[in-house]
This record gives sequence, structure tokens and C-alpha cells, in this order.
Amino acid sequence: MNFNIIRAARAVLHVTDLEASRKFYVNTLGFVETESDEQHLYLRGLEEHSHHCLLLKKAEKPAVEVMGYRVYSEVELDVLAEFFADKGLKTKWMEAGTQKAMGRALRVEDVSGLPLEFYAKMDTVERMLQRYDLYKGAKVQRIDHFNCMVPDVEKAYDFYINELGFSCSEYTASEGERIWAAWLHRKPSVHDVAFMNGKGPRLHHVGFWLSDPMSLINACDVLAASGYTASLERGPGRHGLSNAFFLYLRDPDGHRIELYKGDYLTSDPDFKPVRWDINDKRRQTFWGHEAPDCWFNEASEVLNLDAEKTVDLEEAKLKQHKPTFVI
Amino acid sequence: MNFNIIRAARAVLHVTDLEASRKFYVNTLGFVETESDEQHLYLRGLEEHSHHCLLLKKAEKPAVEVMGYRVYSEVELDVLAEFFADKGLKTKWMEAGTQKAMGRALRVEDVSGLPLEFYAKMDTVERMLQRYDLYKGAKVQRIDHFNCMVPDVEKAYDFYINELGFSCSEYTASEGERIWAAWLHRKPSVHDVAFMNGKGPRLHHVGFWLSDPMSLINACDVLAASGYTASLERGPGRHGLSNAFFLYLRDPDGHRIELYKGDYLTSDPDFKPVRWDINDKRRQTFWGHEAPDCWFNEASEVLNLDAEKTVDLEEAKLKQHKPTFVI
Amino acid sequence: MNFNIIRAARAVLHVTDLEASRKFYVNTLGFVETESDEQHLYLRGLEEHSHHCLLLKKAEKPAVEVMGYRVYSEVELDVLAEFFADKGLKTKWMEAGTQKAMGRALRVEDVSGLPLEFYAKMDTVERMLQRYDLYKGAKVQRIDHFNCMVPDVEKAYDFYINELGFSCSEYTASEGERIWAAWLHRKPSVHDVAFMNGKGPRLHHVGFWLSDPMSLINACDVLAASGYTASLERGPGRHGLSNAFFLYLRDPDGHRIELYKGDYLTSDPDFKPVRWDINDKRRQTFWGHEAPDCWFNEASEVLNLDAEKTVDLEEAKLKQHKPTFVI
Amino acid sequence: MNFNIIRAARAVLHVTDLEASRKFYVNTLGFVETESDEQHLYLRGLEEHSHHCLLLKKAEKPAVEVMGYRVYSEVELDVLAEFFADKGLKTKWMEAGTQKAMGRALRVEDVSGLPLEFYAKMDTVERMLQRYDLYKGAKVQRIDHFNCMVPDVEKAYDFYINELGFSCSEYTASEGERIWAAWLHRKPSVHDVAFMNGKGPRLHHVGFWLSDPMSLINACDVLAASGYTASLERGPGRHGLSNAFFLYLRDPDGHRIELYKGDYLTSDPDFKPVRWDINDKRRQTFWGHEAPDCWFNEASEVLNLDAEKTVDLEEAKLKQHKPTFVI
Repeated sequence: MNFNIIRAARAVLHVTDLEASRKFYVNTLGFVETESDEQHLYLRGLEEHSHHCLLLKKAEKPAVEVMGYRVYSEVELDVLAEFFADKGLKTKWMEAGTQKAMGRALRVEDVSGLPLEFYAKMDTVERMLQRYDLYKGAKVQRIDHFNCMVPDVEKAYDFYINELGFSCSEYTASEGERIWAAWLHRKPSVHDVAFMNGKGPRLHHVGFWLSDPMSLINACDVLAASGYTASLERGPGRHGLSNAFFLYLRDPDGHRIELYKGDYLTSDPDFKPVRWDINDKRRQTFWGHEAPDCWFNEASEVLNLDAEKTVDLEEAKLKQHKPTFVI
Repeated sequence: MNFNIIRAARAVLHVTDLEASRKFYVNTLGFVETESDEQHLYLRGLEEHSHHCLLLKKAEKPAVEVMGYRVYSEVELDVLAEFFADKGLKTKWMEAGTQKAMGRALRVEDVSGLPLEFYAKMDTVERMLQRYDLYKGAKVQRIDHFNCMVPDVEKAYDFYINELGFSCSEYTASEGERIWAAWLHRKPSVHDVAFMNGKGPRLHHVGFWLSDPMSLINACDVLAASGYTASLERGPGRHGLSNAFFLYLRDPDGHRIELYKGDYLTSDPDFKPVRWDINDKRRQTFWGHEAPDCWFNEASEVLNLDAEKTVDLEEAKLKQHKPTFVI
Repeated sequence: MNFNIIRAARAVLHVTDLEASRKFYVNTLGFVETESDEQHLYLRGLEEHSHHCLLLKKAEKPAVEVMGYRVYSEVELDVLAEFFADKGLKTKWMEAGTQKAMGRALRVEDVSGLPLEFYAKMDTVERMLQRYDLYKGAKVQRIDHFNCMVPDVEKAYDFYINELGFSCSEYTASEGERIWAAWLHRKPSVHDVAFMNGKGPRLHHVGFWLSDPMSLINACDVLAASGYTASLERGPGRHGLSNAFFLYLRDPDGHRIELYKGDYLTSDPDFKPVRWDINDKRRQTFWGHEAPDCWFNEASEVLNLDAEKTVDLEEAKLKQHKPTFVI
Repeated sequence: MNFNIIRAARAVLHVTDLEASRKFYVNTLGFVETESDEQHLYLRGLEEHSHHCLLLKKAEKPAVEVMGYRVYSEVELDVLAEFFADKGLKTKWMEAGTQKAMGRALRVEDVSGLPLEFYAKMDTVERMLQRYDLYKGAKVQRIDHFNCMVPDVEKAYDFYINELGFSCSEYTASEGERIWAAWLHRKPSVHDVAFMNGKGPRLHHVGFWLSDPMSLINACDVLAASGYTASLERGPGRHGLSNAFFLYLRDPDGHRIELYKGDYLTSDPDFKPVRWDINDKRRQTFWGHEAPDCWFNEASEVLNLDAEKTVDLEEAKLKQHKPTFVI
């Protein structure tokens, strides 16, 4: 079965201070602010014609409300609803009009307990792709992917590959060839979603696409000049896995985002997933740099479908929590 | 009907001197040479796992043998063969084994008389994506698109959109809103093929994808240092249409290639094709530079399905052959 | 004799509309505005601690008031005054306090009739080098050089080399090894001033230094997005001569500026000037591109020392006015 | 007194395996090999017309033989010899012909015990600046500076500023405004030599100039692809101090080199040295990254003037050995 899921398309995050978020995302990183009110900040990348790819909602504490995937048409929402219900997974409809700029949306809990959303319609707005006079900071172009920490990566892998129709581009093998992490895609890029072994379900980061590597270097300079040195958690560096040039940032609420440039085309069915050993020094950072412990341990908790409380965490199934580089 | 055409995947060009071609494509531009013999040079980009994306065949005079599209599976070849035959368009099977590294291929003449090829299988080879020690010149990553001159763009447009299932990302309007040029895609990028009004059918250029804009600047420097100043026909520049950073080169046989970096994601069905007026100065080159006349007049002639003789040319239907910038 | 001239340090240009100049230089190109009033706009580059490197004065018509060189100390101004007077060249003192932010300045007419100024003191201001949050457009770092059209390049060359103590980095030879153009420096770069054969004396352009090549590409994009396509006169390209990556722009009054990145160190006394033949296709643009005719014909007229009227023009001594590329 | 020292011009390092050095410096980083024999490897940057800027000599153990400064003329060597002798510092003449490609050279021990060399003449060779077809790896352009660890920075500072005529561009203050580190220049850049507080005298690193930031990113990729991940000690990053974009590497013998791109012009006498507090997080790396301990502790030992044995080390005078970032 192919659900015609197009791509990772929007994230809804709870933040505690919208003004602090605006300073970080809009003024410094260069997201376009589509609109906002007392409770919401709707952001998009420079090339995007969709109303937003990142919705920040004011809340008492930081959390992830939902990760949204775009599908081709309305009818697929019904098929998906039935599919998730059949699997015994929770679903919830968000009718058109209940979410700003959005058509009808189906919210579900996936097999790891992650809150997903599927939708076919979002209002369109002016693309700013060639408004170079407005570019600033990291010149963020568009949303690219979600990366999630889950206790059982193979369970998530099987569900997304075999049930939802995702393909695997690269993966990390650990302890007896068990899958420690996997990069899965619908659009023909490295990923729309990745899963890594860890206490979860949690959102590790949302990845945003940049147009060129110098925009990422420029982002570092602008962030530092704007007082955000503490937000630069890891990088810049080149990922071995995915080959992308990357920078990990923590936003004012601790949510992690990745500025991401690189990738390659994965459109062909004979593309063989690239295998990496978890202890290969060039896997994480091709140049050999280690990621800090916080990068492995910290992630954003996710809300249940009613957005009332965070989903309970479970310990990771595989024992190895981070690479060991034995010399 | 959706034929599950994946993408523009290989070009077969006739050239008169393989050694001159090797010096240009491999030594200078940085294509990977998969293999070669007295009559053939098989080239690929650094990220490609397919055996080749550009096949140069030694011949008495330069010409285009075929433009190849990859499809998802063998069965689609039969559906396509039937479809083209039903339309009264010529078809020809190339059985597996008759073309090196290739499975069965269907060759056809499209509605403009262009020689196309569809195939589902090509041998896979090692990807060189992270062999940075081997990168040189333009660091060409992969094939991206074909651009063809045809006498009747609207006819080609209708055939590719309505029959073959391509989508339009951008187009140029002329004389009473007639389509003067159109950019059509299967993979979610700006294009796999573009058509422009002109004497045809001819191949205007094959576009190759670069990883970043500095690789294109570097290519200019390396080309000039290697004695190829006369090969730099147009650019570097930023296209208004497509937003790509580009450079047009003429290879030793006069075939035109484009080094191309930029683009944006066109996966969503609500993406509205971008309209450009032919006389908008920023359309061709966003910075206002004009293309030289040779860029509008010269293109590579194409062979018929038996590769015996070039297809007859027809004058363009729309009178305007190039933009007029009235001040 | 060594006058301890440090470097090309400021230009004073007359412009007709300060608001149009501000939009171009400050809003679009990213110069820092130190201060301004109804009649003046004082601009500097991001790394500069001097009050300004470009002073735009409101006037009825565009013209060049003076090209300023910085010297090491006050006492050298007196030596220079005596030297120029001895040569029978006009001099004029501008006492401290008569020019904003400037100490005492000596204005002279050089051997070609160009209005120069020497000064040892200028007020210092905050450097913005690491205020990356304020960077925009071309991210102009500092003034680099003047380029002047003069009727007799060899006369200018002899004067600057033998009398003023400049050194030659590169030159262009024409008709019987006569010097057609020459690049002369005091700071150990390619040039503080260049002279080219042409109707003069006129200022061809003022060159400004950029930190990296992507800033120049970015400048093209921002200029085009801001409506300045007609201002992009030539480039971007790589100079054969000087090896710099360049872009020539015409400001709203037609004054030409060059955005310039590249260069090399010329500190050693055994550096041999690089000779280029005027008809070497890679001299102007290493990539082989020709400069447009306007680039050879148009330049800014200069004022006499009283800034009352423009200096009379004389035809070029060497007959060749631009390169001829014979194939 | 002004000794007309032009710039830091060459380093002579002892290495244990010339073939390993060639693979690192020439094949991977892109230094030009001017010539070599069983005992020597003479290297230069792409823009350099001097025979070499880095001489690697085969020896039993790694060490620094000498750091060479170029002066304007022969006569200054005699003046320098007298000056150092008067100060009671050791001197030694290397007559013309005793060192390949070199004129007469004066070797001295400076006030910290560092082995220096002054010379006015070196053979010139072809510049490779525009041989872009030969560029590879980091595309190293030229030598830029030496950085030395000395026990008494203020003593070195006073000697170089007050006696040798260097100027200070930036410095780091510690414990009661004592100078913890200082950046001193003769050419109008940030430095020809820097001194930092530490056990010494030792050479901390030799800095080499790159043409643009993407060459540095490219160097990381090429180094990693060539098996040198363990050589990447620190960076890439932006220095707060100097504003340069940097990467520190350890060569196969443990000598540290810096790939360096950035800087600014320091030609004017009213340039005020920039003060940094040692504990300012943005001093070392503007983006806030900490340097690893080995970067503070490890450095290359230097030989005495007869190149017989290493100079004895003394503990640092200031107690703070590295920054402390108190949150």
C-alpha cells in the first residue's frame, strides 16, 4: 500500500516566550514570519509557498505537539485514518478551520508513540525565494526532516518501511547488526524522518535546508554576534552519514534544530541503503569530531494527541547510547 | 495515466574525438570515468551509483543519439511501448545486453521528433560521493535535466503534461500569452526537461548538478587555466527562471552542457507554475545579463531511432527567437 | 625619497541625490553610514576604524573632488607640499577643521591633472568587523584602490614609481612594448592606484575589498532583487590581471565602483611585475569574457583643486583603446 | 630603529619521514613542491615566487630548526647581527651557498630563546597563482605567521615592539591586566608572530594563508577522505581574536599548522590594539567552541643555533594556562 505521503512538512512546537523565539528564528536565523498573534508564530523558509513549516505555540513548558506530513489528496486522509485505527493506534481529526491556514488534518500516534499529523491542504503565500534583499542569517530555505529518539528503532523502521511506504537511505548498525539508527525518506532525499536508539519517544531535532555551505558559516557568525554562542551545540561539520554540512542549534526553549546542506538524490529503486558501523569515527562527523554528550542525551518530549500531557518515556532497547571510539 | 518515469537519467552523445572529450569532461570538469573502450566513454557524477549518466560515442560527426529517462520497473516499458505505438510515434526496442550496463530499453520519437529512451535497469557501481580526495574541477554530482529546442513548445508541453505525467514548475509567456518555453519535472525539482521555442527538434543542453556555488566558480578558474576560455559560452550567473546558479559550456564537439546549482523543491501539488514574461530582463539572468546570440541559435542535432541520420528541422512557430529588452 | 604614503584611503565624490546614494551604498551594498547631514554622507567598510573611506557630497552634477592617500605623519605633508610645488604642480592646504573628522590635508594636482589629497589624521570610530548581525549585501570591508584613465600612462607611471615611491605589481603592454596600463601599490597588495590609457584625466573606478567570493555573488543577488540590474556593468568574473574576483557597478550617478576580492602579497622587493599583452584574452577576464564598450569609454570627470570646474580632458596617447581579440 | 623586517617568510622543521610529509603537505593539502632530495622537501604556496616557505628536513626526531624573517636588503643583516650581539644574544652566520636557494642568513636566539633567521635573498621560481588546474586540498596560498609559546610573554612583547619594530594588533589580558598573549606584525596584517603564555620556548604553530573560506571546508573533506581525521585537532571555526576562519592540523610528526583565512588591514598608525579578556568565550572561537587541552599543552620544541639539541624549557610565568569559562 502506498499512502502518497509527500514529505515532512511542518512541526508544531510549544515554546514559553514567543518574543524570544522571534528574535532567534526570524531576526537571527532568517525565517520568514508569515503571521503571528499572542499565542502563535507561523514561520516558513524562503522558498516555501506553504503558509508555514514551523508553528510555535505559547505554552507553559516546551514540548512537541505534532510532526506534520503532507499527503497528495484529501482521500488519503481517510485511508490513513482507517489504517491507523486498524492497527489499534490512536487517531484524532482536526477539522478544517480549527487550525489556521490548514485544511482537515488527521492526527495519530505512531508505533513509537510519536504524535504525527497528516494533511493535504495548507494556504499558500508568496514565495520569497528571489527576495534576496530580505535574506538574512542562515537564509533558511525550507523544512527538510524530523529526527526522533525511540526505544525500539527496528520497530519504527519496520512500520515506516513496510506499512507507510518509506525507503531507507542509510542506517547505523550496532550490537550484532541490529539497526541502531535509520534514515527514511518519501521525497527523494536522504530523509524525511530518522530514528535513533534512545530514551523515547522524543523529538531529537527538526532539520531545515540551506541553499549553500557559506550560509551555514554565516549563520554561525551572525548567531555569535547576536549573543547566541550557547545555542551552538554541535558543528559546523560534515556528516559522514548523509554527507550533509550541518550545524545543531538549541532554540531559546531547548528545542534542537539542524541547519542542513548537502544530501543527494535517492529517487532510484536500486539505491542500496548505506551501512555505517556505530563506532566508525567518520559516521557522525566525517572529519572525526565527536558530538557532545548532551547531543545524545537531550531531546524534546512529545505530547499525546490531546496535547494535554507528555507521552511516557521508555528506555532504549539497545544498550549502546553513543559511539565508542576505541583507538 | 502515470508511467512512473523517475527522472532524466542519461544522455548518449556522438563525439568525434574521445581523447578530447576525456580531457574536457574527466580531467577538467571532474566527471568520473566508469569505463571506456575505443568507441565509448562512460561517465558519471560523483554521487551516482548508476554506471553512467553520459555516454559519449565516437562518430564521424557530433549528434544526439538519445535522451534517456529512468522508469520504476520493467513492466512500464511495455505500457510505454504500447502508448507510443498507439499515438503513431515510432518505437524501437534495445534488448538487454545490446547496450553496455543497461537492461532492456525502449527508444521512441516523441511528439517533437526528439529521440527518447526509457529503461528500468542499469548496472550499479561505487558511489564516489565521499571520495573528496578525487574531486576536481566542477565536482559534478549528477545529471539533472535536458533542455530542448522545439518548433512548437505548446505541443510538447501538452504531450509531456497531459500524456506523460510531467508537472510544470515555470514557464515563459510570449505573444498573446503563448508558451514560449516551459520547465517540466518528474522528480520534485524545477525540471527533468525544458522546451524552448526555436528551430528543432534539437538538444539545447544537458544540465548537470553541482553541490555548491563555489564549485562553479572553481570550474571557471580551472577551465580557463586548462585552455578552455572559448568553451565558456554564458555565465556564471543566476537564472531568474529556476533561481539556479549556472554556467553554460560548449564541449569540444560543440555540445552544450550546463553546470547547475540551485533549484527548489516542487513536490507539492498546489505549487503554481511561475510565469515569466519573455522580455523580463531578470528571466534569463536574474542579474540582467543578456545571453549571447549563439546561445539562442546553436544547438545539437538529434538522430532518428536507427541513429542513421539527423532528424529534419522545422522553423519555430512563435516569431520571437530571443528576448527583446526595450528600455 | 620615500614619502611614507600608506595607502589609498578615501574618495570624495559629488553626487546629485544623497537619498538615492544611501539606498545604493548603505541599504543595498552594506556600507556603514558613520554620519550624514543635508550635504554629506560619510561611509566606511565593516572593518574600518577610520571615520570614512567614501564621502559623498551633494552637488549639481556628478564629479570627483579628490582621491585621498593616507601618510604616516604630519611632517610628511610639508615635505610633499614642497615636492609638488618644486615640480610646478598646484597645491592647496585644507586646514584641520575645514573637513569633518579630518586633520590637515594637502591637496595637489598630480602629473596627469588628477586631484589628490594627502592626510595623516582622521577621527577613529568603532570597527564593525565582528558585528555580523549588521552585515548585508556585499559586506564591503574596506577601500582598496583607485583606477584612473589618463592620456599618458607612462608619464603617470614614472611619476608614481620614481618620485612618489610606488611599486609596480602588474602592467599591460601594447604597441611596441609601451605601457598601456599599470597597477601600482604602496601597501603590499596589487594596487593602491592603477592607470589605464584613455581620455583623461578621469577616475575610472574606486575599488572596495570584500572578505570572500560568496559575498560578491550575494551582492549580485541582492542588487538584482533591489532593482539594480542596470547597475551591474561587468562581471562577476576573475581578473587575469591581479587574479581578483570582481564586479563592476555604476552608482546612481554613474560613478563606477568595483567590488574586489582576491589579490596576493607584494611585500618582497624581488617581486617582478607581471607583464600582460593587451590582446591576451585572459588579461581582463581570466575566463575570457570581454568587457562592454562602456567600461572602456565612460569614467567620472575630476574637479580642479578649487572644486569649481572639471579638469580639461586630453585624448589618449596610445591608439589602442581596448583589447582586440583576433581569432 | 627600524630594521626593515618585511614578514615571516619561512620555517625549517625537522621531520622523521619525508614521504609521509609529502603525502600530507603536497598530495593532501596542496602545497607546491619546488624540489626535494633524500634529506629535504622544499614547499611553497600557490601564490609564492620565493623558492620555499617551508623546508622539511629529515631528522631522527621532530623539532624546529629556525623561523625565518625576510628583510629588505643585505645591509640590514649586518645591523641586526650587531644589535643581537650587543644585547648579548647568540648569533650565527649562514653564508650564501650553505643553504639551498638562500643568500646569506643571520641566525639568532631571541630574548625567549627562540631560533630566528633573517635573510634578504631567496631564489625565485614560477608563481602558480593562476594554475588552477593544479590546485588541490586546502589550496594553500602562502605562509602567514608563527605562533610561539613562551614563559614570559611581556618580555617577548617588549623586545619585538620596542626593539625590532613590530606593532601589536590584538592581545589577551589576564591576571591584573598582564599580557597573556599578543599578536604582532610587520606586514600590515594581524600578525607575523604571536606569543602565548606557556611552557617554552616552543613553536605552537605555523600559519598558512588560504584564499577563501570554502577552501578550508574543502580541506576538511579531503583530509577526512585521505585518512587524516586524527590530524584535525581544532576547528574549523572563526577566531574572535583576529576574526580569521581557521583550522588547526597536526602533521605526521605532530607539528601544528594552522590554515587561516580572514584577517584585516593594520597599516594605519592609529590602529588601537584590540584587547580581549582571556576568559571571554568568543576570544578563541567566536562561536563559543572550546579548544581541546592538547592545543594548550602540546607544541614543537626548538633547536639551539647549532641545531644540536633542543632548547631547555621553562614554566610559564602567568599561572593561567588556558581560559576558564565560568557560567
